[in-house]
Amino acid sequence: MLHLNAFLMGVGHHEAAWRLPESDAFAQTDVEHFKRLARIAERGKLDSLFLADSPVLWNSIGRRPAGTLEPTVLLTALAGATEHIGLIATASTTYNEPFNLARRFASLDHISGGRAGWNIVTTAGVEAARNFNLDELPAHRDRYERAAEFIDVSLKLWDSWDDAAPLGDKAGGVWGDDDLLHPPHHKGRYFRVAGPLNVPRSPQGYPLLVQAGSSQDGKELAARYAEAVFTAQQTLAEAQAFYVDLKRRAAALGRDPDTIKILPGIVPAIGATEAEARALEEELDRLIKPEYARQQLATTLRVAPEDLHLDRELPADLPSEDEIQGAKSRYTLIVTLARRERLTVRQLIARLGGGRGHRTFAGTPEQVADAIEEWYRSGAADGFNIMPPVLPSGLEAFVDHVVPILRRRGLFRTEYTGSTLRDHYGLARPANQFARVPVAAAH
Amino acid sequence: MLHLNAFLMGVGHHEAAWRLPESDAFAQTDVEHFKRLARIAERGKLDSLFLADSPVLWNSIGRRPAGTLEPTVLLTALAGATEHIGLIATASTTYNEPFNLARRFASLDHISGGRAGWNIVTTAGVEAARNFNLDELPAHRDRYERAAEFIDVSLKLWDSWDDAAPLGDKAGGVWGDDDLLHPPHHKGRYFRVAGPLNVPRSPQGYPLLVQAGSSQDGKELAARYAEAVFTAQQTLAEAQAFYVDLKRRAAALGRDPDTIKILPGIVPAIGATEAEARALEEELDRLIKPEYARQQLATTLRVAPEDLHLDRELPADLPSEDEIQGAKSRYTLIVTLARRERLTVRQLIARLGGGRGHRTFAGTPEQVADAIEEWYRSGAADGFNIMPPVLPSGLEAFVDHVVPILRRRGLFRTEYTGSTLRDHYGLARPANQFARVPVAAAH
Repeated sequence: MLHLNAFLMGVGHHEAAWRLPESDAFAQTDVEHFKRLARIAERGKLDSLFLADSPVLWNSIGRRPAGTLEPTVLLTALAGATEHIGLIATASTTYNEPFNLARRFASLDHISGGRAGWNIVTTAGVEAARNFNLDELPAHRDRYERAAEFIDVSLKLWDSWDDAAPLGDKAGGVWGDDDLLHPPHHKGRYFRVAGPLNVPRSPQGYPLLVQAGSSQDGKELAARYAEAVFTAQQTLAEAQAFYVDLKRRAAALGRDPDTIKILPGIVPAIGATEAEARALEEELDRLIKPEYARQQLATTLRVAPEDLHLDRELPADLPSEDEIQGAKSRYTLIVTLARRERLTVRQLIARLGGGRGHRTFAGTPEQVADAIEEWYRSGAADGFNIMPPVLPSGLEAFVDHVVPILRRRGLFRTEYTGSTLRDHYGLARPANQFARVPVAAAH
Repeated sequence: MLHLNAFLMGVGHHEAAWRLPESDAFAQTDVEHFKRLARIAERGKLDSLFLADSPVLWNSIGRRPAGTLEPTVLLTALAGATEHIGLIATASTTYNEPFNLARRFASLDHISGGRAGWNIVTTAGVEAARNFNLDELPAHRDRYERAAEFIDVSLKLWDSWDDAAPLGDKAGGVWGDDDLLHPPHHKGRYFRVAGPLNVPRSPQGYPLLVQAGSSQDGKELAARYAEAVFTAQQTLAEAQAFYVDLKRRAAALGRDPDTIKILPGIVPAIGATEAEARALEEELDRLIKPEYARQQLATTLRVAPEDLHLDRELPADLPSEDEIQGAKSRYTLIVTLARRERLTVRQLIARLGGGRGHRTFAGTPEQVADAIEEWYRSGAADGFNIMPPVLPSGLEAFVDHVVPILRRRGLFRTEYTGSTLRDHYGLARPANQFARVPVAAAH
């Protein structure tokens, strides 16, 4: 079965969505807006909600609605408005401490009854570094080494309570068994954390681990830890190659490749007819103000804005991915896309404005379902991260018109069959790494 | 008018509350339990909920229910279950980064419609330090200097968006006015933070600032920044002296003393008759297992557990407050209480087990109301942090039986008259420190 997440972002992923008459320009900080979106996604029995994040204010606030509620907090609010759907929050290993972050995710997992997921990112961009006592972005490799140790420490903290540690023995006056605590006493290169965590082991054991970077370091990290991978893939061939590569890497580390779900992003502009879908796409692209986007593209490409002519292709002499310290795979994706399709800067800006490098697509519900099925059946995806260009209308269109088609084709669930996010993904609750009794004997 | 907060802690503040037949021994991680408590407090029109916190697992888990959901996350869940009541979360300036914490509180303030408060603590205890890459607790003075800078940075971040920065100009395609952002570019002793925050200025401007340490450094910090102060005071005379001292310190810094509310903790065991109240208190004290508490008391007093004889008074030779690096005022409070009342270790343990140094009190609703009124009218308190020994029953007893008496006496509100936490406390929304137009002219 397919896995489908609703990737929520303000009033939509298209950067000009806020300018449509239907959009509430201030919805990005309105919890009621997000509750509506969450209920629509749950009505469609989607696997999970997904929130991106970076601890920095990007770009100009002139360009589009700016400011994002912190994801672990916002998803806690959405936990109370829903009953089944998973809740995946992005959080940075570069700008957090493991004890604090592991605790917040454990808290969210308790509060949501086992629906928490953590999208692990290392956070590109010197602007974020400057919010955390640094002048420069730590090197790519360092960020990934820190990320691996951060995850190791977090796993130890989440396992620092045996599931059986709480006893609640009122008559004996013994609440918990101290011998079933496993303080990590971790001393590593980046962190020293004594523990144990101050939250008992949560319904899922720990949150579903998700990863979204597609650089070499990112793929290595994903192969080791991730249970789901979000990725930006523009063509079927590239998506298949990525899929095979990541499943192989996971298998090479002794993992069952089925326990790592690969979910490319897709930005579907949906219309009752193809013409209607294209009209929506064109209306959105028409509302983009290219000057803001050109500025950002220049920053990403490490060139001066005046070297990017709106009606010409990208300059020939751009840095190689090796020279890029942040968002490596995103950099390569943009350059490859522009070169392959010989896009002008203006065209490239429209493509990126629609989905920031993810696959954009305009069509009828049937065509969207076809596109999803094709990739799913061709070994390019285990599911998709759905990124509606306009919210809530684009999510409603997907849930009410595309999901029923996928169900008729036997590709998607009609009801939730479990209660946790791992249940939705068909993954087992992880055993405690410190359990003193073999798992089989404990049952 | 009085201000009353409900200080929530698992199944009650008394350490043996979980052993009562009525108590759910696992409620400390059950969000539904906390939602019930929040609704009871809101039914009583209390000003706020309050959650204590430390990023560490204290003590043995044998002793009492252990593990606490992270407060900014838990209060976000409670925001969704309530409409009016304030939400005050404790968070440490020693073990957080300003950008992350300022953002979470701004998010909570947006999500709750202006009900967030931050209880600022510096976190005593080497055990917490060891969860954050340190071997020793930073010195008391250093923790307080870092706290002051942390608050300054946070205030700059919260004010880094002018209230008028979001425009939402769809026709012009300009979402916000970049000239109305005020990135702090802070470079201090402890922090370098460029900013701006990635959350627009919130309904209250920023969360209500609360402080709870009563050492000299703590009182200085409170006098400068706090809008509410929680404090442990055992006698009327001590409470009056603290009240006068803090109001004077605030006035000396040019503040209106009415803008800093002083709220001692009170642990009321409530019964329909005095005998019933005393029976509840005695039942709870009987359920304490003194060996756990003796161990903790020995740690606090820096003596060996075997030097504390349960049926004798404290040893004569204890360290002075100057030698204590963490929780100074708490140390002095315990020693003063024991010496003044000539308590045996067993008696002291019962008193501390009831309210961890806060004023414990057994009586009828009328007697509890009398105690509250006396301190309020004698210049010892602007209100109280209510710490029910057993939850939810102790909060229900307070709301249903004590609050109506306070209302009849004209001391407490019958309805909420505002929508934000500062409204409940009778405080104005703070102006933006970077506002370019004089506040009067802006209206």
